[in-house]
Amino acid sequence: MTSNDRAIALAPAAVEELQAAIGAEHVCTSAADLDRCSRDTIPWDSRCAAVVYPGSAQEVSAALKIANAHKLKVWPFGGGRNWGYSGTLAPEDGAVVMLLHRMNRIVEVNDELAYAVIEPGVTYEQLNNHLKQHGHKLWADCTDGSSQGSVLGNALDRGIGETPYGDHFGNLCGMEVALPTGEIVRLGGGNNGPKTWHLHKWGIGPYLEGMFTQSNFGVVTQAGLWLMPEPEAYNSYVFEVKDERNMPHVIDAFRQLALAGIVTTKLHMINDFVSLTVLTQRIEQHRTGGGHLTPEEVAQLRSKYGVSPLTCAGGIYGTRAQVRLQRAILRKALGRYGRLLFISDTLLSVIEKVIAASWKSPLLKKVTETLAGTSLQILDSAPHVHRILQGIPTDFFVKHAYYRSRRRRPDNAIDPARDGCGLIWFAPILPFTSHDMLPFLARARQRFEEAGLDFWVAMLLMNPRSVTCLMNILYDRDDADETRRAEALYAVLLADMQAAGYQQYRAGLLAWGKVHAHAPELLRLNERIKAALDPENVVAPGRYGIG
Amino acid sequence: MTSNDRAIALAPAAVEELQAAIGAEHVCTSAADLDRCSRDTIPWDSRCAAVVYPGSAQEVSAALKIANAHKLKVWPFGGGRNWGYSGTLAPEDGAVVMLLHRMNRIVEVNDELAYAVIEPGVTYEQLNNHLKQHGHKLWADCTDGSSQGSVLGNALDRGIGETPYGDHFGNLCGMEVALPTGEIVRLGGGNNGPKTWHLHKWGIGPYLEGMFTQSNFGVVTQAGLWLMPEPEAYNSYVFEVKDERNMPHVIDAFRQLALAGIVTTKLHMINDFVSLTVLTQRIEQHRTGGGHLTPEEVAQLRSKYGVSPLTCAGGIYGTRAQVRLQRAILRKALGRYGRLLFISDTLLSVIEKVIAASWKSPLLKKVTETLAGTSLQILDSAPHVHRILQGIPTDFFVKHAYYRSRRRRPDNAIDPARDGCGLIWFAPILPFTSHDMLPFLARARQRFEEAGLDFWVAMLLMNPRSVTCLMNILYDRDDADETRRAEALYAVLLADMQAAGYQQYRAGLLAWGKVHAHAPELLRLNERIKAALDPENVVAPGRYGIG
Repeated sequence: MTSNDRAIALAPAAVEELQAAIGAEHVCTSAADLDRCSRDTIPWDSRCAAVVYPGSAQEVSAALKIANAHKLKVWPFGGGRNWGYSGTLAPEDGAVVMLLHRMNRIVEVNDELAYAVIEPGVTYEQLNNHLKQHGHKLWADCTDGSSQGSVLGNALDRGIGETPYGDHFGNLCGMEVALPTGEIVRLGGGNNGPKTWHLHKWGIGPYLEGMFTQSNFGVVTQAGLWLMPEPEAYNSYVFEVKDERNMPHVIDAFRQLALAGIVTTKLHMINDFVSLTVLTQRIEQHRTGGGHLTPEEVAQLRSKYGVSPLTCAGGIYGTRAQVRLQRAILRKALGRYGRLLFISDTLLSVIEKVIAASWKSPLLKKVTETLAGTSLQILDSAPHVHRILQGIPTDFFVKHAYYRSRRRRPDNAIDPARDGCGLIWFAPILPFTSHDMLPFLARARQRFEEAGLDFWVAMLLMNPRSVTCLMNILYDRDDADETRRAEALYAVLLADMQAAGYQQYRAGLLAWGKVHAHAPELLRLNERIKAALDPENVVAPGRYGIG
Repeated sequence: MTSNDRAIALAPAAVEELQAAIGAEHVCTSAADLDRCSRDTIPWDSRCAAVVYPGSAQEVSAALKIANAHKLKVWPFGGGRNWGYSGTLAPEDGAVVMLLHRMNRIVEVNDELAYAVIEPGVTYEQLNNHLKQHGHKLWADCTDGSSQGSVLGNALDRGIGETPYGDHFGNLCGMEVALPTGEIVRLGGGNNGPKTWHLHKWGIGPYLEGMFTQSNFGVVTQAGLWLMPEPEAYNSYVFEVKDERNMPHVIDAFRQLALAGIVTTKLHMINDFVSLTVLTQRIEQHRTGGGHLTPEEVAQLRSKYGVSPLTCAGGIYGTRAQVRLQRAILRKALGRYGRLLFISDTLLSVIEKVIAASWKSPLLKKVTETLAGTSLQILDSAPHVHRILQGIPTDFFVKHAYYRSRRRRPDNAIDPARDGCGLIWFAPILPFTSHDMLPFLARARQRFEEAGLDFWVAMLLMNPRSVTCLMNILYDRDDADETRRAEALYAVLLADMQAAGYQQYRAGLLAWGKVHAHAPELLRLNERIKAALDPENVVAPGRYGIG
């Protein structure tokens, strides 16, 4: 059965009403449109019935009212680049995918009070360009995913980024929401909002904004976002741990540094395989099938690329004196466990020149690599690390999604869903202690290897007390057996996690049925709210297990 | 009509069921019990019908089920010390006041991950004593109100405190709630909670905890609270601004320091009258009636007590080197605008010895006051400021509630509601800029003076972008005309605030009817949630204008 055979067409009257409400050109039902929105990198097969592009909160509201009248299932997405969770997929056929790309206004930027007001179609690249072009001394946090991701979309799925403003939902302040029945509500204030709508996060009365994250209780059409004032001084740092026996010390030292307010960024701690997937593809190793890399292959690749078993990256900000002092504190706490390199803007420009020259001269390359103790490829990532910790997005890291693809990855216009890559995110969140994390990671590695897949883990600081142990199941979608193993691995990781008493910080549709597995009371509460706000169950039924 | 005449008695069957559910001795209907819970410092008159003291979440649940069956109105309070908002008052007669004093277990304290799990009956004093007695190197934030206040009660009304952990709701993580219909739900997790229940604030799925703050959607029966790890070094600071023309510079400098992460405490900026109300009572000035203090009287009192027009207090924390550096940064930014004094633990113990000796020797008193440039009374407050910024509660400041009382304030067992004091909090939140704040404050001062009352304002940093301009309407409850003027002043301040586009960060029953005045859509949303969760409208109907 091809996807076209099983396409569920909307009632012509519904299509006509949608066309009248938001414009015929913004209601798409061609096979190409449906194809584009019916694929992600996860092993799932469902086909939408239409793709709609409302241009304003009023059009979102109108579309939702039509959905209620015709009992449509509307799946709203900011940018639709939530690859590896489930992108623009609905669990079942027949969804009306609502993409908010056209709602991409940057409504306000306030320098004095350091915030912006944006619509859900605004991308990381757009917001950052806007700030630079208009001379605002403000940084907007981004992720190390696609530069074309939706700033609000990510925040509403409670994604995390890089800088001290990296808790994306935590830095939203003041939301406008279209309820499933079509009413437009400004949470925390009236029609014009109080003047502190984007300044005081809790408003007055019940604080409701959290309800509209990781949920299907409404469509957020606008929100305030706190921005980071450009500091006087900034350094990024890279910390390479070559001896894995230091792992417990490193984790516990970082926890203490975070609790003490020294580490304020969403510190990233990645294993060797993460670095390798950014630098290379499996086809380059002439491995197109079979299991995970052998220890010998990993050792060779580590050596070839100068990759450490664990690499950590973060940033420090403040006055020049504060940055100097933080460097000294980090050196004292971490120096004995690995190699700590601080990069200032000045040093970065030197590094960039040396890298550029070294790529042109094999001799200089050798000298540079020897002096740096790593490969030019690894050095190449330093500018990206440095910029992303200032909120400047890059597509450099998301290229890892192509690791197991049989095709060469593109140099730009990265789109792993379009390009048939296989990738599933598994995102458990753990207490930030070595005694919680290490046994869990060891077990997970074993599960990956049992599935014949390579263990990819990036540990991202959620806050000083908890850490997301983000695992990426990279697989070859053109290999049916490997796809089956990837899917089974996800299921077993999920089961292990729940048995160990943990949960994901964020999940795609493969896990939604399990979100409330051990929380029937919470599910009933969510269902009561859902029924009150969305009696016809039109918005994203089943999202996070609700509706 | 005396209050007893108009008492609304509960149906005997309801009382019996409550007695059976939570124990006869915990269901109180004597006149003395009802009297105690039917008064606050605001000008309001309503009488409750019973006071119940459940001892567990299960007993809360049982009481709520009985309330549904008998259509009782249940008003839950943590500690009942929300003086000046509305304490334990319900808007109407006949409420069942539910006090959670018996639920005062400290369920867990975790040193490694710096949190506690507590019930709503736990007081600031109890939690702080517990941490000290058990050798935990953790600080729990408190307020400068009563040491007997409920830690959770304040957090659930979104009160703010002192230290970098002073956003009390912001530092709650993982709640257990009894819904109005009696179900007990652990938000963010299952029956045992995931192991990150008290570590990762957002859980998975919709983040619902905010719904249960400043609301009547349920009764919180337990919650996690993040605690501040004791830093290596700490200084409190007091900054006295003697020239009012520096006000705009001071406000804007503090905003920049807060945005840059230098000022991390809930900085308090108080006017001269706040200091005076802590130090003295109006009866001491032989002023028992009449209007506000004249400029001459204020000048005399300023001079007598060495009080500045504006006094700011905060704390700095970190390694010894970090504290030194922050002192230098603050000095550079603020030094030109006033007198900045840093107090370390060491200096504090010297100050305390000097103060104690000076109180005993008039000569030494004179020398100390000359050297310090202020009065011994003001110096007396330094140890309290220093300790409160470490989370150690004190009843020193709450004594201001007695300022306009005709009776001498007690030395301990402070209880302004019991003692018939007149006090109404008005708590607008403003953008943290001088151009927003100063015109608003000038207008408010004029309103106070028109009412014949003294202008009391404490500006408390909510976050780097917004500031609560907390005003206290202190009045003589034994003076009917003054009481009437106080009530009218509150109404006019509220109207001015709404006309200017601001809102309160928190409100008592005098304002609940106005909370949604300019937000009819938000009111409808809140009412839909209320109806879904509390179909019989049994929990605190009317709280924050809902139900």
